[in-house]
Amino acid sequence: MLEDKNQERTSLSELGEFGLIDHLTKHFKIHHTSTVKGVGDDAAILNFSNEQVVVTTDLLIEGVHFDLSYVPLKHLGYKAVMVNLSDVYAMNAEATQITVSIAVSNRFPLEAIEELYAGIQTACNNYKVDLVGGDTTSSNVGLVISVTALGKAIPEEITKRSTAKAGDLLVVSGDVGAAYMGLQILEREKAVFKVNPSSQPDLEQYSYLIERQLKPEARKDVKSILQSLEVLPTSMIDVSDGLSSEILHICKNSGVGCNLYEDKIPLDPQVISSCEEFELDSTTIALSGGEDYELLFTIKQEDFPKIKANPNFSIIGHMTEEKEGAHLITRANTKIPLIARGWNALSSED
Amino acid sequence: MLEDKNQERTSLSELGEFGLIDHLTKHFKIHHTSTVKGVGDDAAILNFSNEQVVVTTDLLIEGVHFDLSYVPLKHLGYKAVMVNLSDVYAMNAEATQITVSIAVSNRFPLEAIEELYAGIQTACNNYKVDLVGGDTTSSNVGLVISVTALGKAIPEEITKRSTAKAGDLLVVSGDVGAAYMGLQILEREKAVFKVNPSSQPDLEQYSYLIERQLKPEARKDVKSILQSLEVLPTSMIDVSDGLSSEILHICKNSGVGCNLYEDKIPLDPQVISSCEEFELDSTTIALSGGEDYELLFTIKQEDFPKIKANPNFSIIGHMTEEKEGAHLITRANTKIPLIARGWNALSSED
Repeated sequence: MLEDKNQERTSLSELGEFGLIDHLTKHFKIHHTSTVKGVGDDAAILNFSNEQVVVTTDLLIEGVHFDLSYVPLKHLGYKAVMVNLSDVYAMNAEATQITVSIAVSNRFPLEAIEELYAGIQTACNNYKVDLVGGDTTSSNVGLVISVTALGKAIPEEITKRSTAKAGDLLVVSGDVGAAYMGLQILEREKAVFKVNPSSQPDLEQYSYLIERQLKPEARKDVKSILQSLEVLPTSMIDVSDGLSSEILHICKNSGVGCNLYEDKIPLDPQVISSCEEFELDSTTIALSGGEDYELLFTIKQEDFPKIKANPNFSIIGHMTEEKEGAHLITRANTKIPLIARGWNALSSED
Repeated sequence: MLEDKNQERTSLSELGEFGLIDHLTKHFKIHHTSTVKGVGDDAAILNFSNEQVVVTTDLLIEGVHFDLSYVPLKHLGYKAVMVNLSDVYAMNAEATQITVSIAVSNRFPLEAIEELYAGIQTACNNYKVDLVGGDTTSSNVGLVISVTALGKAIPEEITKRSTAKAGDLLVVSGDVGAAYMGLQILEREKAVFKVNPSSQPDLEQYSYLIERQLKPEARKDVKSILQSLEVLPTSMIDVSDGLSSEILHICKNSGVGCNLYEDKIPLDPQVISSCEEFELDSTTIALSGGEDYELLFTIKQEDFPKIKANPNFSIIGHMTEEKEGAHLITRANTKIPLIARGWNALSSED
């Protein structure tokens, strides 16, 4: 029983997050016909009857996913719910219930946990989801939050990552890159505050960026907008790890390639100006920034007229045959391979 | 944004785990008719159609819930699943799917995580449940495991905590107290090992206790045994925090009292002998030890003949009117109030 646990062998960071999940789960057997889709999409699909249930879960660790020195607990609670609802909406499903488990140390007074739950409650009210369970336990270290979300949809409406076809158009909701730039602003202010605690930063010009980082909204509205336009996406995923990483997920899972057009990527003016200030390339930020919680989806070419003038969506590229690969077509009209440099949870280790 | 997070006010430990959950969730609104039962039972009940879905979740933190110096990772993975399935079985439901999220630091090589998942996989195979999702992330501290389990049952079969009636008989499966004594043995061996690393402990005489601690089995079989006996429990809960704590949950939620008979509490001979060795009172251990993962349930008096000779079950008491309170009737025939001294996650804080 007292076996050696310190045998140094394969490093986790070699595999990366998705590689590790693949590696660990590939030998698991599916026992139930009710399991329509298990590991490998934004959410699992469970068929209990004519409506299907989707379930998704996320684990947030202090010091890895959030820094309490600039993230108010209320916003953290809100965001923890958004992160999960975003996965449900990426299945084109209606989010219905969540469970929330937290581990906290005694350094948190009750009022701090109440703040956290106030954010969770606001999210539940705004998005009409029911908190139906959870677990509260102690932590000898930092704060840990685990959220599981359930949703429902009729089977014909559910959108997976694996059903895009060559020729489909690639569409993203809203704009991308702002949450990452918000994080840069907050990190800079934290550094300034350490040096000069009495400084009064004027963050007005970065308000959109900071809001996108601290209080993201999941795109519940996309399903109904698309329904009113009579468009059913051929595939869908949420943008949590960065645009390029998500595009490559669709490509890999659907067996297609992609041409993404740099000049079509939707950027907020604050992203452009802050990228100039930080001397960062805005396209790189849009492709790799992450935490946007927008929806990325593909549609049939024939649906182009229904989408093209809609202010909620940007058509940013099209899917190709798999052998053509996935590329970014730059403003200078050069074609460079798309690579995933999105935020990788396992490489963010110190 | 840079608000003061260190305002010392109400301490979490004053509320205790259940008080905290009650406190935090009492103002949440239920939006969906599909939410039949939310927070407040072993699992939430969701009605999506003629079959109901149950969902339950648990969060396990290194140094709080487990000690890797004597818990093999494979057993830990197995147990993390059992803890959740036990909650599903306590609803008299069939466990069907789980999600598993883990946070790990780089001090774990891949092979360690594989060991953990090997245990999860064995549990999934033995209990016929499907792993359908999860999240893998980094931790800057210890290992964190979050499991969510889903199950299904026809509505008429689901057993809640809140439906026991005065006059019902109180029944427990298997025996209790062994897992706690297993922990005492392991803690003692760890201390011995620190002093003398070459010691070769003979743990043969404690084998049942150690197995109950390291590799508990959830009582999947109880539902089918009861079905074959044509007994439907009037209420049910799993024994995770200790017998007295669980009895008091049924009493509080059902609005009843209870008489528990000390001489009826099922104890394994190894529990009795090890309690003598450790100079512990075996009844106290049975009442407060926890982690037994047996099922505690109530049945109608008329079902007594169907249960009485069954080796899987012990009738340990009966429910009374609420005003009579909850009591232990000792071997000496004195009546003392039952109090919950079960393992409380929030008071185990250092």
